[in-house]
Amino acid sequence: MVKKIPHRIYLTEEQIPKQWYNLRADMKEQSDPMLNSSTMQPVTDEDLYPVFCRKLAHQELDSTTRYYDIPEEVQEFYRMYRPSPLIRAYNLEKALGTPARIYYKFEGNNTSGSHKLNSAVAQAYYAKEQGLTSLTTETGAGQWGTALAEACSFFRIPLTVYMVKCSYEQKPFRKAVMQTFDADVIASPSNTTAVGRKILKQDPDTGGSLGCAISEAVEQAVSTEGCRYVLGSVLNQVLLHQSVIGLESKIAMEMIDEYPDIVIGCAGGGSNLGGLIAPFMQDKLTGKASPRILAVEPASCPSLTRGRYAYDFCDTGKVTPLARMYTLGCGFIPSPSHAGGLRYHGMSPILSKLYHDGYMEAISVEQSKVFEAAVLFAKQETILPAPESAHAIRGAIDEALRCKETGEVKTILFGLTGTGYFDMAAYRSYHEGTMVDNIPTDDELQKGFDGLPKIPGIQG
Amino acid sequence: MVKKIPHRIYLTEEQIPKQWYNLRADMKEQSDPMLNSSTMQPVTDEDLYPVFCRKLAHQELDSTTRYYDIPEEVQEFYRMYRPSPLIRAYNLEKALGTPARIYYKFEGNNTSGSHKLNSAVAQAYYAKEQGLTSLTTETGAGQWGTALAEACSFFRIPLTVYMVKCSYEQKPFRKAVMQTFDADVIASPSNTTAVGRKILKQDPDTGGSLGCAISEAVEQAVSTEGCRYVLGSVLNQVLLHQSVIGLESKIAMEMIDEYPDIVIGCAGGGSNLGGLIAPFMQDKLTGKASPRILAVEPASCPSLTRGRYAYDFCDTGKVTPLARMYTLGCGFIPSPSHAGGLRYHGMSPILSKLYHDGYMEAISVEQSKVFEAAVLFAKQETILPAPESAHAIRGAIDEALRCKETGEVKTILFGLTGTGYFDMAAYRSYHEGTMVDNIPTDDELQKGFDGLPKIPGIQG
Repeated sequence: MVKKIPHRIYLTEEQIPKQWYNLRADMKEQSDPMLNSSTMQPVTDEDLYPVFCRKLAHQELDSTTRYYDIPEEVQEFYRMYRPSPLIRAYNLEKALGTPARIYYKFEGNNTSGSHKLNSAVAQAYYAKEQGLTSLTTETGAGQWGTALAEACSFFRIPLTVYMVKCSYEQKPFRKAVMQTFDADVIASPSNTTAVGRKILKQDPDTGGSLGCAISEAVEQAVSTEGCRYVLGSVLNQVLLHQSVIGLESKIAMEMIDEYPDIVIGCAGGGSNLGGLIAPFMQDKLTGKASPRILAVEPASCPSLTRGRYAYDFCDTGKVTPLARMYTLGCGFIPSPSHAGGLRYHGMSPILSKLYHDGYMEAISVEQSKVFEAAVLFAKQETILPAPESAHAIRGAIDEALRCKETGEVKTILFGLTGTGYFDMAAYRSYHEGTMVDNIPTDDELQKGFDGLPKIPGIQG
Repeated sequence: MVKKIPHRIYLTEEQIPKQWYNLRADMKEQSDPMLNSSTMQPVTDEDLYPVFCRKLAHQELDSTTRYYDIPEEVQEFYRMYRPSPLIRAYNLEKALGTPARIYYKFEGNNTSGSHKLNSAVAQAYYAKEQGLTSLTTETGAGQWGTALAEACSFFRIPLTVYMVKCSYEQKPFRKAVMQTFDADVIASPSNTTAVGRKILKQDPDTGGSLGCAISEAVEQAVSTEGCRYVLGSVLNQVLLHQSVIGLESKIAMEMIDEYPDIVIGCAGGGSNLGGLIAPFMQDKLTGKASPRILAVEPASCPSLTRGRYAYDFCDTGKVTPLARMYTLGCGFIPSPSHAGGLRYHGMSPILSKLYHDGYMEAISVEQSKVFEAAVLFAKQETILPAPESAHAIRGAIDEALRCKETGEVKTILFGLTGTGYFDMAAYRSYHEGTMVDNIPTDDELQKGFDGLPKIPGIQG
């Protein structure tokens, strides 16, 4: 008799990982070092101290420590909302008529509505531990800002959030959630920073961008005593913290004697994708298994599939160090897409390197197809997905439909990063048929590439 | 060594109840029978057939069957989002400095955002099984409408939702969720029914009420071939389905060797409260245990604490049968409170009877105090509660603070019925200090009582 796999697989509290996994420790080749943009030399821990708190600066640059102990205070917070369930999508499988077994790791069961809380808790804790008195950050769709507000409220550390202005105006309720957790929310670009004032002078009506909000948050942090900046994606430290997603997923799959043939994640800056795939990529790097790893990005902001692998700034205002990554150019402003959390010009340097070296695949999808998948999923699985997460759903559905054609019984794992309760304007636009797929032309992309920094001896 | 109780206690899939529990089977005295308003005789199954599908009509009137098997199709749906977690509120306890142990049963982990799905699935299933071709319902805050839309979409049965007009206008995103699940959402009062047209003629600018939306939904159901009406609270059948909450809670508490000294639920029509307390009330009725049972209702709509125990209509348009319950009068229009799900003039006849007979207590609380509790809870427990649910939180916090004074180590269980993602306008009003506590005067209540129906020989 075949043992029936339950719909929801939960780890016990004791099984929640007590260490994060640092994927870099198993990479054959490291991603190129972050460069100090003044000296064009690799940045040191000390270079980062004005921006990041010390332990996070160390985690950012440490490619050798394989496992980091999760501080007890962070574990205690994790226990409030973790383990997150690994869910067998029985009803989605049935609706698709696929022989594939589809699993998803659902990270939306907390007020922030997404996986972002996993790193927010860590970053807020380390800041508090160092005795910092305030933090700044940026947010696009609002999930990161909400997660960090929640964590900062818990650890009692004041937070200022620069929220991309078009989001600030379109999502007043997102702002209200952050304010519930005592965050100070400012529409970016703003008059509170030099870079904000400069951008406003050039274009007073701009809706802002994630790159611009980052510039403002960094400027505010480095010019305020006891203040540091925190970021919800792209960074190595964020992927480290998010590895808890993949580690839990792997344990849950082992409990039901499963292993994924393919692991699928949505890809913006890479925080969820990097965390979800971490232990499976480890297996691949160490030759223990060879799962396919698939990144799904928006066609409107296709950094992996149409970007350049080059050194670039992480922000629009060019105040950050340079990172080598797949990028559309820090001056590239993605068209307004409803997956605000994926509207970033670059991609995690770790993931960029792995993609460059052939360890993972990437596809881009139009948002109308993404919402089609989101609605189908919602009706079958009782979870209303965030537009970002729905990119992974689209990828998983397409793989499952291919299995239907070929008859292959593949095991598919995808990351369901969060819920779409604050994205109903997007759903409405989909229902009303007014959703537009904005795909950049080659000429538009070329303009972004033309703005890539010149680095003597490295990048012409 | 004391074994540490985990933060989240999950039943295994096999432990999810396979039967609902019918509290009436253990009541010493039954609640008075529902009366046909034309004949003033107790209603029969047949009387209800034009309104409810047959199996639900039977459940409505059956006070003897102790356990009902949950149909396999309903169980299959339950397995998608159940078990819901029983959560130990360690961080809330710490913040309060209470010796009490606080547990909450969290029902918000599904797209409907609340416990309402438990009955929606059952009602949609029975309708489909009977071969009905459409359903109608009403919704106030939108949680019931969303839950039913989700269930109807799954079982492929068309649904029309009459949404209280002020909610319809204030909560466009709630509407968008229901539309995502293919529901037809109509602002009530509307021109689609005679009762709607009548009310609109009297007061074209009315924001509507739950009682009025019920009248419209019932009229639409009884005048449409193959259509029936479904309701998300008040009814005996709803309490039956919602018993899954209490049954799961009791099993989870047994797993950690706990039993509640006090069980607390928010009270509107009684769907959550009745479900949560069911097995604990059974213990009380059968003499096995004597937990305190506490209903927390809004001061703006205090049916238990300030209402009359009398026969009344369940709707404003007086198209429903008469039920004996605690009521403020079916003509009472509660002031606009943010807990839209609790703005109902009456209370479940079962709960009314139990309250009348001294088996449970009730308190009413002002919404500003409710939101104070909601914000404290959100910051400590990573869940943003619905305003309705926050009434129970307020009750639990006050009990825990009393334990702090007396030093008693009580075990408190409360129901966290749902999330507040669509209630951010209310949170914003709380933050901005513009929230008003509308408490009806005695004169205002008297007007409602004056409208109670006269029933020769029963009620003068």
